[in-house]
Amino acid sequence: MRYVHFLHQGEPVLGVRRAEGVQVLGSESLESLLARGVDLLHHAREAQGPLVQVAADAWLPLMRQPPKIICVGLNYADHTREAAFVQPDYPTFFARFASCLTAHNQPLVRPRLSDSLDYEGEMAVVLKSGGRHIRKEEALQHVAGYTLFNEASVRDYQFKSPQWTVGKNFDNTGAFGPELVTADELPAGGKGLHLETRVNGRVVQSANTCDMLFDVATLIATLSEAMTLQAGDVIVSGTPAGVGFAREPKAYLRAGDLVEVSIEGIGTLSNPVVDED
Amino acid sequence: MRYVHFLHQGEPVLGVRRAEGVQVLGSESLESLLARGVDLLHHAREAQGPLVQVAADAWLPLMRQPPKIICVGLNYADHTREAAFVQPDYPTFFARFASCLTAHNQPLVRPRLSDSLDYEGEMAVVLKSGGRHIRKEEALQHVAGYTLFNEASVRDYQFKSPQWTVGKNFDNTGAFGPELVTADELPAGGKGLHLETRVNGRVVQSANTCDMLFDVATLIATLSEAMTLQAGDVIVSGTPAGVGFAREPKAYLRAGDLVEVSIEGIGTLSNPVVDED
Repeated sequence: MRYVHFLHQGEPVLGVRRAEGVQVLGSESLESLLARGVDLLHHAREAQGPLVQVAADAWLPLMRQPPKIICVGLNYADHTREAAFVQPDYPTFFARFASCLTAHNQPLVRPRLSDSLDYEGEMAVVLKSGGRHIRKEEALQHVAGYTLFNEASVRDYQFKSPQWTVGKNFDNTGAFGPELVTADELPAGGKGLHLETRVNGRVVQSANTCDMLFDVATLIATLSEAMTLQAGDVIVSGTPAGVGFAREPKAYLRAGDLVEVSIEGIGTLSNPVVDED
Repeated sequence: MRYVHFLHQGEPVLGVRRAEGVQVLGSESLESLLARGVDLLHHAREAQGPLVQVAADAWLPLMRQPPKIICVGLNYADHTREAAFVQPDYPTFFARFASCLTAHNQPLVRPRLSDSLDYEGEMAVVLKSGGRHIRKEEALQHVAGYTLFNEASVRDYQFKSPQWTVGKNFDNTGAFGPELVTADELPAGGKGLHLETRVNGRVVQSANTCDMLFDVATLIATLSEAMTLQAGDVIVSGTPAGVGFAREPKAYLRAGDLVEVSIEGIGTLSNPVVDED
């Protein structure tokens, strides 16, 4: 099943993709359904809402208020090398706040204070249940599904202090969606999928999710050693080589650019770039 | 006014401190009141609930789901030196997830995977309104009040990768409360207040909030250059020198210890330490 979040008659609704369009499920958010433990496959099968088309400008971030958005840095060896970091033997986690989220087809905003807005195409994992001290062997049982994330980063702010937080949390830099593909439709752990990022049609990142240093099951198990994971938590699993700041000359995003992130079997997340104001 | 969050007849309620005890305000959370733009002074004056005493084990974290918990590292020069960091000329922000929060009198939990649980006494700022590109001169108008935070850190996990996230987000390591002191009762920006942390009665941190390198107004203005701040957001403003990991020999917390954080005019946050399980 493919869940989508969009504006229908001016109101946010969840829907499920059908051959002929999108069937409206209702106004309850995905994070609320997941928190209540609703089975997404069953819920979609019971749907009785109208069949509609999603207007190009009607997409919303898949969730607006997930309990946590946990990003993973340095999870592809070629990206760690291009970024000139030493590869840690433990995952590099950092946080995004929900205030940075934007949707498919909505703009990534280049802030007026910086000219170093950069793309990072990534696979995101949405949890349907959580807990603490989850064993790696059981970790994938907690996955609701997979989606796309453009973890756009403001590089000068990312490196102003030892922690990357600000450069990773500018408004309208976390593109999230458009479709949550339930785990049953993809290989276990979202492994073995081709990931590609394009800027104005030119391929700038090309990798396979099996190249992650810490796979999805390991990320879930490792996080849960420290913190209670919850239904609706999002893990953004890291970007491969090819980002703009590691290029010579640097290739940052400019107003008018179009960035697309595609993962085999999941879809395409497309965002134009605009300047703030 | 002093707002508190606690269990009354088994249910979470907000209350306001009176000379004779705590007057119950109702079941609406502080984050919900703030999100609705309710004036805390007016709301407390209108209270008609019963006057009760808060049982020692009835305290709850001041908020359970603030929109953001933004912590500041390296905000006291003596702490930056003891931690052997180079002082950045930009604030070092990192995030806590709400899942780490605990309450006054509730235990800080030393995880079974680590013996390096450490205290960090800090002043926390709660916003009553937000926005983007807030001018420093107007920043303090957005402050609802001040409270205490023990930003307890699991040091080996903090330094396993370049980002501190995991070591700052173990369950039951973010003690938050007990009282939100509204801004009208304190000096502007919470400046000039003595801050002290004690372990088993011994003073381990002693400083003044005017020693912060980036004051509260600067923190708010700087964050809002990047992200939209929201009513209910929490800024945890940094810890001074004296933490356990910088001592020789290192002085980490052990089961049975009692940690107290006090700030002049705000109160005392007290937490026993227990081992996980």
